[in-house]
Amino acid sequence: MVDYPIPKKKAVKRKSSSKKRRGMALEKLVDEANRFYLEHDKAIIHKKPTPIQTVNVDYPAREKAKITEAYYRKPSTTDYNGIYKGFYIDFDVKETSHKTSYALKNIHEHQIEHLSRVKRHGGLTFILIHVKREDASFLLPFERLEKYLERAKTGRKSMTFAEIAAEGFRIEEGYRPRLDYLRAVDTYLKNK
Amino acid sequence: MVDYPIPKKKAVKRKSSSKKRRGMALEKLVDEANRFYLEHDKAIIHKKPTPIQTVNVDYPAREKAKITEAYYRKPSTTDYNGIYKGFYIDFDVKETSHKTSYALKNIHEHQIEHLSRVKRHGGLTFILIHVKREDASFLLPFERLEKYLERAKTGRKSMTFAEIAAEGFRIEEGYRPRLDYLRAVDTYLKNK
Repeated sequence: MVDYPIPKKKAVKRKSSSKKRRGMALEKLVDEANRFYLEHDKAIIHKKPTPIQTVNVDYPAREKAKITEAYYRKPSTTDYNGIYKGFYIDFDVKETSHKTSYALKNIHEHQIEHLSRVKRHGGLTFILIHVKREDASFLLPFERLEKYLERAKTGRKSMTFAEIAAEGFRIEEGYRPRLDYLRAVDTYLKNK
Repeated sequence: MVDYPIPKKKAVKRKSSSKKRRGMALEKLVDEANRFYLEHDKAIIHKKPTPIQTVNVDYPAREKAKITEAYYRKPSTTDYNGIYKGFYIDFDVKETSHKTSYALKNIHEHQIEHLSRVKRHGGLTFILIHVKREDASFLLPFERLEKYLERAKTGRKSMTFAEIAAEGFRIEEGYRPRLDYLRAVDTYLKNK
């Protein structure tokens, strides 16, 4: 980006907002957007709690139950689902610090299976991916991702950033919410 | 039910299956049905994990992470959601041992708010309720339940079993899955 002749103040502002943005994990921005959508009655999308197997729970008198032994369980779905414009929506959030591409092994088998099922049943399925190097986020429809998962079986095991940008819909940064990913969903719906 | 002239063997069989049925919480039967639907590709419906706030986690060498302090958090949605015939589906499961009616205070404020939102956005919303006394389960559409929630503001705070039976759709017991509640969803869809 060219710094001149843009006034210095503006440039600084942009830089600092971008810095803040980078420091915040994509999931946090998605959660923030979901709260905004709920408040403004645009969509009802929630993050699923992490599945935990409790083994021991203490019930101290006059205090709330305290879990003293528990273990993380393997999730069987994606992290996010809900309803938007009458559609069942289902997605996962990914981030990469890699320089040039996104390794597809980071999309786990149970997530692929789940998204593939939901797609077949008529749901809107995608992943939201944040490319840290370029500070850019994309909505990548699952049916487009599938081609690359197929390719990975015999060929290249990753998607280049150019492929992600070409196949996905860029999520523009905004003010409220900062990551207005439903606008990318709208574009996706128009192009579907 | 009349025991004669039905052969004794048959009657005994029925009784024992019903006993087993009673001993099993409705939630377990719903989970069993959901596994069946998933296996047979009929629907993708999952129970949401209980939200837990972890405070302390140990990472013993060569062992899996052990949560040593955690607390239950208040859920903000219902327990079940997913997709069926392209519809976003959202519901909660209730049980009552009461003799004649179901106290509406058992449907919590956050559940009512959530179901009302989802209904407005075009989702299929209901509760599944098991009346232990009659060993009968019903699908009660949320829009029908709403009338009684409204009535509860100034009048009767519960729904009689007769009202539940009249407003809801009875879920017939089957073999696989034992609680085939999607058949009741189909009837509901036809009557919607």
